Amino acid sequence: MASDVNVMTGRETLPEAMARVAREVEAALDDLLPVPEGSEARLAEAMRYATLGGGKRLRAFLVLESAALFKVDRRCAARVGAAVEMLHAYSLVHDDLPAMDDDDLRRGKPSTHRAFDEATAILAGDALQARAFEVLAEPDTHSKPEARCELVAALGLAAGARGMAGGQMIDMLAEGQTFTVEQIIRLQALKTGRLIQFSAEAGAILGRAPPHQRTLLAAYGRDLGAAFQIADDLLDAEGTTEETGKTAGKDAASGKATLVAVLGTQRARAQADMLAAQAAAHLESFGPAAGLLRDLAAFVVARRQ
Amino acid sequence: MASDVNVMTGRETLPEAMARVAREVEAALDDLLPVPEGSEARLAEAMRYATLGGGKRLRAFLVLESAALFKVDRRCAARVGAAVEMLHAYSLVHDDLPAMDDDDLRRGKPSTHRAFDEATAILAGDALQARAFEVLAEPDTHSKPEARCELVAALGLAAGARGMAGGQMIDMLAEGQTFTVEQIIRLQALKTGRLIQFSAEAGAILGRAPPHQRTLLAAYGRDLGAAFQIADDLLDAEGTTEETGKTAGKDAASGKATLVAVLGTQRARAQADMLAAQAAAHLESFGPAAGLLRDLAAFVVARRQ
Repeated sequence: MASDVNVMTGRETLPEAMARVAREVEAALDDLLPVPEGSEARLAEAMRYATLGGGKRLRAFLVLESAALFKVDRRCAARVGAAVEMLHAYSLVHDDLPAMDDDDLRRGKPSTHRAFDEATAILAGDALQARAFEVLAEPDTHSKPEARCELVAALGLAAGARGMAGGQMIDMLAEGQTFTVEQIIRLQALKTGRLIQFSAEAGAILGRAPPHQRTLLAAYGRDLGAAFQIADDLLDAEGTTEETGKTAGKDAASGKATLVAVLGTQRARAQADMLAAQAAAHLESFGPAAGLLRDLAAFVVARRQ
Repeated sequence: MASDVNVMTGRETLPEAMARVAREVEAALDDLLPVPEGSEARLAEAMRYATLGGGKRLRAFLVLESAALFKVDRRCAARVGAAVEMLHAYSLVHDDLPAMDDDDLRRGKPSTHRAFDEATAILAGDALQARAFEVLAEPDTHSKPEARCELVAALGLAAGARGMAGGQMIDMLAEGQTFTVEQIIRLQALKTGRLIQFSAEAGAILGRAPPHQRTLLAAYGRDLGAAFQIADDLLDAEGTTEETGKTAGKDAASGKATLVAVLGTQRARAQADMLAAQAAAHLESFGPAAGLLRDLAAFVVARRQ
């Protein structure tokens, strides 16, 4: 599961590193997700369908690269990366449900409730969330139980009512309403920002880093998440369904509150670029070791899918 | 939040003790659940609606009484009791959804998706699950992080694909199918048994009890949970909507797989009584201190609501 590649050589490019992390996390997920068996096999199948074989694994990349700054065992970091991806996958499954965003397409495939059914999708999301916390708490994740508890508590905060779920609640209420720029920024900080921030902080938790370094990684994650969300909304507004693997133009059609809708594409793009530069600046004191994380900030605002 | 009542006097009756624990856990839940504020206030309202002011708090009672066997600080045990009740409440919210059991009534009130809406109910369940794990991992729950990690990992296992969510999956697939007695027993062991078993084991985890005592409490919880489920199915078959606070006769109407349907009420009742006696027998070595837990076994099969 772990890779022997030394990410500190500085010779690996960002796309190479992202592809390598995606493979490592895929292997960890395959190992950690339940195997379909027994009368409930359909549930494990849906969990695997929703989680495996897709996505850029941005969150896992943040975990593994922030952990590498502190020379954390990559097998431990890959477990945390896998847990964050399970949490993220569950949120996509539930967000796509008919009662939520009602989306039939995800990562270019039918969304989980379309490939299975609604009940199975709800349960698969629920079981993915439970498994994410379980994985973090298991001894293999870190030799020190304090570190594992900090990971669980921080992920719980990022995922819950003051984080991801709270953001999705605001997003549901926002449809058809007029939101101010400040309201949209807070919505997105909760909905996608907190989990991305957690992912960047996770390396510091795993590495038992001093508080000021954890704070820097948190600030990096916060700005990166905000930049990422604007870039995502720009893709939705400008991209095609084929490019993005999800239904294009959906935000505008459903009256979703996005900065692109309020500021226009040009100002939104400028804001994303500014946030990406700010994110990279937080990591200056980490020197060349944080090169890939700084490159990632530029990447998220330049990506076309 | 904590009570100064000494539960070891042996003078408190089971109904008194259950009422006292229900009050303690209600206070802990009120303290631990998010306060409705900000644009996402509706989410915290739904979480509170689904969790506060209802139920027998059977699972919390198991946590607090098993913890009392090891003289665990009641404030710590009340947090774990509250976390289990949050997890249980989330499962009821999601089970009641139209795509699942489609139930309009819960604890005599409109179910959460009826009182709010489907999207809010899905998110409230999701956020309750996240908060349950977060509470377990927080330092106030136990001075030893090992104990907190064990609680998180055990609850994750009990709630996930090999536990509660897996059981609900089988239950969904079972509708209209013919199940054997063995299949129904396994379904119910996963769907309700694992969380009840966790609740009884939690006291041993909090009390850092030796493995054989944890095993005894787990065995007690397993048999108690099985007895409880049959009693619940008997109530559904025999009780009225008014008595049970949920739609009566629903299992038979929807073709749910229950032991009552397969064995008939008389044999099902005999089986429940046998399991309750077996549950109580596991606690013999704990002596008079486990009196209330033994009484509880008799109570769950005798209850009328």
